[in-house]
Amino acid sequence: MLKVILMSVALVGVSTLANADQAENYIKYRQAVMKAIGGHMGASTLIVRGKVNPDGDLAMHAEALAKLSRQITRLFPEGSDFGETKAKESVWQDWAKFEKAADAARDATAVFAEAAASGDEARISAAHKEVGKSCKGCHEDFRQKDD
Amino acid sequence: MLKVILMSVALVGVSTLANADQAENYIKYRQAVMKAIGGHMGASTLIVRGKVNPDGDLAMHAEALAKLSRQITRLFPEGSDFGETKAKESVWQDWAKFEKAADAARDATAVFAEAAASGDEARISAAHKEVGKSCKGCHEDFRQKDD
Repeated sequence: MLKVILMSVALVGVSTLANADQAENYIKYRQAVMKAIGGHMGASTLIVRGKVNPDGDLAMHAEALAKLSRQITRLFPEGSDFGETKAKESVWQDWAKFEKAADAARDATAVFAEAAASGDEARISAAHKEVGKSCKGCHEDFRQKDD
Repeated sequence: MLKVILMSVALVGVSTLANADQAENYIKYRQAVMKAIGGHMGASTLIVRGKVNPDGDLAMHAEALAKLSRQITRLFPEGSDFGETKAKESVWQDWAKFEKAADAARDATAVFAEAAASGDEARISAAHKEVGKSCKGCHEDFRQKDD
């Protein structure tokens, strides 16, 4: 799996798209990625809170969250700010702050994946809370509320 | 990652839950898992169709799909058939057929993960189609349509 991560090209700063069609596709792509993140996080929360106990699933969800959150900024190329998106203009207007929030999600999910792999409940619970905070922190500043 | 998979206990046949609360939690859990599956599949489709090109992501999505689809029947314990679920009664009434449909999704996603890891575009495209068919096949028989 490290190979998969290493295959990802790290982009520095905000990237720019060639045209509006491409931007629309990236909006769809980031919504699909965020849907996957939401699913894995919801599933993780049910396990961490002891609501369900599907053997072995927590480590799988936590690892997926870490991989999905590794390059969140890449999902927001310049120009992908119109139409069916809840991304606020502040993403691009305050890119440095957005990058920090995305890095916080990357780091929190990496710690969560390690905790889940360890099986240590106290570590898992603490790390899960930090992931929740990083989701919330970024959504509050950079995502419009649902209607 | 094999460890994670091996940690999962294979359940034979349909499992039964202790009470309605537990059933409700499993309904929430399977919806979260299906949301993650939907996100990864949507993301994969955009990549396979050449709409977006996020380096390295396809193998990640395909592997997550394979892991999420490994034990779909486990998400449908007996008694988790009420309230906020779109699962049809046929899941439990025709368990053997449902198991076959779930196995088809498990197998198709495993082939897709191998294809994505290989990087061979023809294999990827063919395997992606089979995953789509397995989703559709199961949803048509066992899931109520969205309103």
